[in-house]
Amino acid sequence: MSDILGQQFIDGQRSALGDETLQSLDASTGRPLPYVFHQATEQEVELAVAAATRAFAPFRHLSPQRRAEFLEAIAEEMDDLGDDFIALVCQETALPEGRIRAERGRTTGQLRLFAQVLRRGDFLGARIDRALPQRTPLPRPDLRQYRIGVGPVAVFGASNFPLAFSTAGGDTASALAAGCPVVFKAHSGHMATADRVASAIVRAAQRTAMPNGVFNMIYGGGVGQALVKAEGIKAVGFTGSLKGGRALADLAAARPQPIPVFAEMSSINPVILLPEALQNRGRQIAEELTASVNLGCGQFCTSPGLIIGVRSPQFTEFLDAFAKNMGQQPAQTMLNAGALSSYRRGLEHIAGHGLVAHLAGQAQGESSAQPQLFRADVQLLLDGDPLLQEEIFGPATVVVEVADDVQLHAALHSLHGQLTATLIAEPADLRRFHALLPLLEDKVGRLLLNGYPTSVEVNDAMVHGGPYPATSDARGTSVGTLAIDRFLRPVCYQNYPDQYLPPALQDSNPLGLDRLVDGQWSRAALS
Amino acid sequence: MSDILGQQFIDGQRSALGDETLQSLDASTGRPLPYVFHQATEQEVELAVAAATRAFAPFRHLSPQRRAEFLEAIAEEMDDLGDDFIALVCQETALPEGRIRAERGRTTGQLRLFAQVLRRGDFLGARIDRALPQRTPLPRPDLRQYRIGVGPVAVFGASNFPLAFSTAGGDTASALAAGCPVVFKAHSGHMATADRVASAIVRAAQRTAMPNGVFNMIYGGGVGQALVKAEGIKAVGFTGSLKGGRALADLAAARPQPIPVFAEMSSINPVILLPEALQNRGRQIAEELTASVNLGCGQFCTSPGLIIGVRSPQFTEFLDAFAKNMGQQPAQTMLNAGALSSYRRGLEHIAGHGLVAHLAGQAQGESSAQPQLFRADVQLLLDGDPLLQEEIFGPATVVVEVADDVQLHAALHSLHGQLTATLIAEPADLRRFHALLPLLEDKVGRLLLNGYPTSVEVNDAMVHGGPYPATSDARGTSVGTLAIDRFLRPVCYQNYPDQYLPPALQDSNPLGLDRLVDGQWSRAALS
Repeated sequence: MSDILGQQFIDGQRSALGDETLQSLDASTGRPLPYVFHQATEQEVELAVAAATRAFAPFRHLSPQRRAEFLEAIAEEMDDLGDDFIALVCQETALPEGRIRAERGRTTGQLRLFAQVLRRGDFLGARIDRALPQRTPLPRPDLRQYRIGVGPVAVFGASNFPLAFSTAGGDTASALAAGCPVVFKAHSGHMATADRVASAIVRAAQRTAMPNGVFNMIYGGGVGQALVKAEGIKAVGFTGSLKGGRALADLAAARPQPIPVFAEMSSINPVILLPEALQNRGRQIAEELTASVNLGCGQFCTSPGLIIGVRSPQFTEFLDAFAKNMGQQPAQTMLNAGALSSYRRGLEHIAGHGLVAHLAGQAQGESSAQPQLFRADVQLLLDGDPLLQEEIFGPATVVVEVADDVQLHAALHSLHGQLTATLIAEPADLRRFHALLPLLEDKVGRLLLNGYPTSVEVNDAMVHGGPYPATSDARGTSVGTLAIDRFLRPVCYQNYPDQYLPPALQDSNPLGLDRLVDGQWSRAALS
Repeated sequence: MSDILGQQFIDGQRSALGDETLQSLDASTGRPLPYVFHQATEQEVELAVAAATRAFAPFRHLSPQRRAEFLEAIAEEMDDLGDDFIALVCQETALPEGRIRAERGRTTGQLRLFAQVLRRGDFLGARIDRALPQRTPLPRPDLRQYRIGVGPVAVFGASNFPLAFSTAGGDTASALAAGCPVVFKAHSGHMATADRVASAIVRAAQRTAMPNGVFNMIYGGGVGQALVKAEGIKAVGFTGSLKGGRALADLAAARPQPIPVFAEMSSINPVILLPEALQNRGRQIAEELTASVNLGCGQFCTSPGLIIGVRSPQFTEFLDAFAKNMGQQPAQTMLNAGALSSYRRGLEHIAGHGLVAHLAGQAQGESSAQPQLFRADVQLLLDGDPLLQEEIFGPATVVVEVADDVQLHAALHSLHGQLTATLIAEPADLRRFHALLPLLEDKVGRLLLNGYPTSVEVNDAMVHGGPYPATSDARGTSVGTLAIDRFLRPVCYQNYPDQYLPPALQDSNPLGLDRLVDGQWSRAALS
């Protein structure tokens, strides 16, 4: 793998101006891998942003079809990466091979899905109000609106999804689809992986004749701050911790020119177990929940961190089965040493609280992560205690028993914003508890029934977002095709002749769009 | 007009808990009008936000049709306000009667337009990806997305449009259309006007059986900060100064739960006069520009504050005619004493610069505003000097001459974000200067050809927004139907039975929406 140079990707070239280096580590052993990465200098951050800024005009004026070809070429290049690539990702993240192969499929599928969005063209939001020259007292001018990219976007890779939420992940794919060049900050947990994926993107850019600066990548601790502050950056995509996301959002808001930050941060993803469901299939639910909590070592943004049930014999029975299952789960290797020590601190924090009992789990040692189950008094929820509202990133979860329906409502009302909320319910439960739905809708981006939130489809209808602190802006999603909306802004042309209008707005409708014309949706050409 | 009580509007009731009062003034004379307003106390701010919070659930679950009826009832109540109302607005703002009658028509038309949007239903953004139970390796769940209101919205009235950008203006109309209750902060410049309009809204709410807290209004200097900080407020709409808007945006970003702020702030709206157009109709352009600069005493957000031409005999000739016209304009009464003193300071600031020459205008005295024309050296633009980038709110404008096409590009490149940019051009000009269009598109929300930016249509295609500092978020517009998007967020339902889905997402498509179903747009019911 001599092609891992460990240099920044700037303007289609490689760059290593600084002396500071970072080492890639084997996530299972903690030992150094033979890959060294140059930390980006301030100058390199500026150069990367300047390259993206230069690329913006030529890139955004390409037809949607051309940008679709670019995204598809990235998908092809990623699919062509060999078994050595899969082995490398496994080494850097300790994630199993099957998961990495599936995550690559998800990532390339996502790129191809955004290519479909580009061909469909509805993201352009074309609206036309034609001139009314006879209108009194004043004629109405011809007005035509469409949406363009906001400008270069800074994207921060996530620790937990080295492919799907990283270099060529959803934020990058949606920004590129919107016509926005990207400056990607590689995550320190999988820099060699990032290097190989960035090389694939650059090959795809060259193959499809994209402007050089369309994709840039930098390495290094702390360079993210300089990136978010750079004048040329017009929006930020981030997946990670509440602390990290909030720091970037604060930085972006304090710029001379503030910019939007779409940070996907912290969610405990409540799962509410309703009585009839527990009665009919309590043991099965205990098994399914155990699997969901332990999936990917609990390192999913949508891992169920809070399980709520109404006091009853069947809930007690479920809890016994669940505790037994959780206690039997093997320890797992976490993504990196930092994630493990965060997990250990999180466990100590919650276990030390007087209103929390430890129900299952081996003592947490220095190496891999031991699955853990806690039980917390409902008063902690009712009081809005931050203890239960904080995500423990790893294979741990907290159970809360509520006295009755009224207390269930009160407990859910006190929750902060979430990515998801799940009801495990039979038809009779839904009839009895349907008033929970509007309450949960106010709190979350996605409501599930009889599923587990750890599965996140990539399609048009998915919402992977939600009110703060789940994300920094509830109006966005970082998964699914609506993610492109975050990086678009409307522009209006007044009275321009047809040949100077963007194709989306021309009379002949050359892109075949469904357009809002004089208040009616139409695919017709205008006469 | 005994119905002007000068009390807060909270939860369908009136409230005056505090002792501090504010007086409404006659804008022409500065003398007190017989209306006294109680400044809202902290408690009243909290009560107003609590009322809006309580109203959110019942209001957002009303059908779009019911919300449309509410907006139309507001329009009817406003249309029914008598001549005494028009006289009152004129007294408080010194704006002429014709302008106020037209602005009322614009405001009620805007409310009715949002009612149409509600009936059309596309704002709901319905997307459905149906279950694929046979998919391998895992079945695909049923996923359905639509958009709901973000929650209670704080709206700040503008000084310059007492109706269209105030109590029942575009921000209020779009927030209510989105299903968001409103807490409106009345502008100190037209509190009696606000009182009458708020009464009309409350009558409409009662007539259409809306929840009490759907609309609330508070008075007072400084209460806006408490309003933006209130936990229940989920978004902010503002029209006013850069300083004021930025302060609110900073406050909102620093909240424990940050919220989006849509502030429409500062724009100098460059008008570029191209050579053939000046050759063919220079005198006419001089007249039209004079009218646009002086419209509404220059107190339009889209008033042309920067006029750029290429050095040529025809530009010199235009400038002579323009200076002559500007010098002949009568003084005008400004909205209030504060606006006049800001105008005077702005004039002194620009006139004092060594690279600026005064071309026309009477000495600015203590009373009404004298129209003024300045000429600035292009170097100020090229250097990005803030002097020329700052809006002078009033009937003044600045002319800049550029040496040639290259310098024109450079000068435009150095501009900050704007609401509008205008080309005054003949076909030959467009052929020669068409490369200006992509450059301007990057800077503005609206590009005009052979029109004047002071005219802002209200329809589907209008964009009244643009990159900072024109607004705090280029992804929004505060005029036109797209304004509703600012106050909506997506929510996804996974695997819910039809009867528990919101109507927008039910199989039978009871709202008759065009929905994105499995990647295809369709109005059909699902089988």
